[in-house]
Amino acid sequence: MTDLTLNKALKIITSALAKGKELGLKPLAVVVLDAGGHVKAVQRQDGASMLRFEIASGKAYGALAVGVGSRWLDTQAETRPHFLEGLSAVSGGKIVAVPGGVLIKDRKGAIIGAVGITGDSSDNDERAAIAGVEAAGFTPDAG
Amino acid sequence: MTDLTLNKALKIITSALAKGKELGLKPLAVVVLDAGGHVKAVQRQDGASMLRFEIASGKAYGALAVGVGSRWLDTQAETRPHFLEGLSAVSGGKIVAVPGGVLIKDRKGAIIGAVGITGDSSDNDERAAIAGVEAAGFTPDAG
Amino acid sequence: MTDLTLNKALKIITSALAKGKELGLKPLAVVVLDAGGHVKAVQRQDGASMLRFEIASGKAYGALAVGVGSRWLDTQAETRPHFLEGLSAVSGGKIVAVPGGVLIKDRKGAIIGAVGITGDSSDNDERAAIAGVEAAGFTPDAG
Amino acid sequence: MTDLTLNKALKIITSALAKGKELGLKPLAVVVLDAGGHVKAVQRQDGASMLRFEIASGKAYGALAVGVGSRWLDTQAETRPHFLEGLSAVSGGKIVAVPGGVLIKDRKGAIIGAVGITGDSSDNDERAAIAGVEAAGFTPDAG
Repeated sequence: MTDLTLNKALKIITSALAKGKELGLKPLAVVVLDAGGHVKAVQRQDGASMLRFEIASGKAYGALAVGVGSRWLDTQAETRPHFLEGLSAVSGGKIVAVPGGVLIKDRKGAIIGAVGITGDSSDNDERAAIAGVEAAGFTPDAG
Repeated sequence: MTDLTLNKALKIITSALAKGKELGLKPLAVVVLDAGGHVKAVQRQDGASMLRFEIASGKAYGALAVGVGSRWLDTQAETRPHFLEGLSAVSGGKIVAVPGGVLIKDRKGAIIGAVGITGDSSDNDERAAIAGVEAAGFTPDAG
Repeated sequence: MTDLTLNKALKIITSALAKGKELGLKPLAVVVLDAGGHVKAVQRQDGASMLRFEIASGKAYGALAVGVGSRWLDTQAETRPHFLEGLSAVSGGKIVAVPGGVLIKDRKGAIIGAVGITGDSSDNDERAAIAGVEAAGFTPDAG
Repeated sequence: MTDLTLNKALKIITSALAKGKELGLKPLAVVVLDAGGHVKAVQRQDGASMLRFEIASGKAYGALAVGVGSRWLDTQAETRPHFLEGLSAVSGGKIVAVPGGVLIKDRKGAIIGAVGITGDSSDNDERAAIAGVEAAGFTPDAG
């Protein structure tokens, strides 16, 4: 498995924020977790509200939990809400099941981490996340 | 009550994984809990995502909680969501109410443990769980 | 980083249990966590008491938390008890700071997981853990 | 009150990491919290162990909790352990009471955030934290 280095994590963040600027998005928080769900790097832009770190982290953590981008969790929450409730419970309340949590995969398809973004609409958050992962040379899985 | 030995628990796991391989399922996590809901044995296959132990455990724990396989909980969640919410709350957030949590019963019908599986669709997870319990000479109750 | 496969995790467990048998130890629980602290494989021997999974897991998790075997945490708990209390708190109560949590390192020294054992004295638990890691071809770090 | 901008937070982090490199310290995690105790920016260096974000965050949070650097909490923990236990409890378990959590003060002495560092000895962690705060043009309070 490829290691997700700090340099790569910072490249993902700065590229995602550049995409946010290009699209005219509101202030964002970007969180990069390693494959085990532990924080590697975070940047919360000026003006992004108080709990944006926790929300962004919850999207990324949810994606890692089930091995698919958080958009899939969003769909599950609508069709099988009790599954999401159970998943959230056994995670210790660490999951936010909306788009914007995107898996980071290496060339062999192994999950090496996840990026979570929040601040604008979930769809726009996800667009920035995908752009960040691609700019770092990895493959995004948005769900 | 028949004891659920470690040897029997391992037989359940390896048989369930063999069934998964036969059916071409995705990587699985298999958890065997004893009659008190405590972990007896676990195996998480390579490629199974991060929180699969917690999800599988939550299915098995839910089955033991009410004395019926977790498929029953899945139905309850649809018809009486407030019951599942209450059950989850009083369990301390330990329950995942979807199929794949199967009770292990001895010849006299006593509950001696439960197996929980996750990784593929809930229906397929349950098939592997049933196969595992039967291979060990016990009676499965899927709910 | 080398992946900690399920086969290797099982090799660690069976070798640790063989060592326990050789030394005449009480029934053990053996937990193998991956590098992110997530359960890879568990076996709790017949006669090992109710919460042995949680204790073994807490030793392994503590070792991963700080990147050194749990014997080091044991010393810290005596010399700087408030550090251990803080560490335990921010971990969400997941750490048991006594010997028996041993890091699993690959040939390059990278931490690829941890094994935790409980059931006999902490010193004996640790001996079994070290034996398990070595038998799988990895380098143990007991702290 | 001066705002702690993301640019300034990043300046603190990169300067602290530069100090760590200069001193030959082990891999570090650096967390910058705003005046409300919410994450502004984080970088965890390659090789820094699993729970380093939580530990660094706990030092910074503790400093903000009482308005003095976490070295003061370390002393309190030795002379009045029950105070630290109470403080940890009412914080929801968010505090690590050892040196390395340093307040960030503006020219008028107002607290605008805190930086927490972990990875090497607590004394060395604190040195890197102080260097980071000063490099960003602010006044450190280590306690």
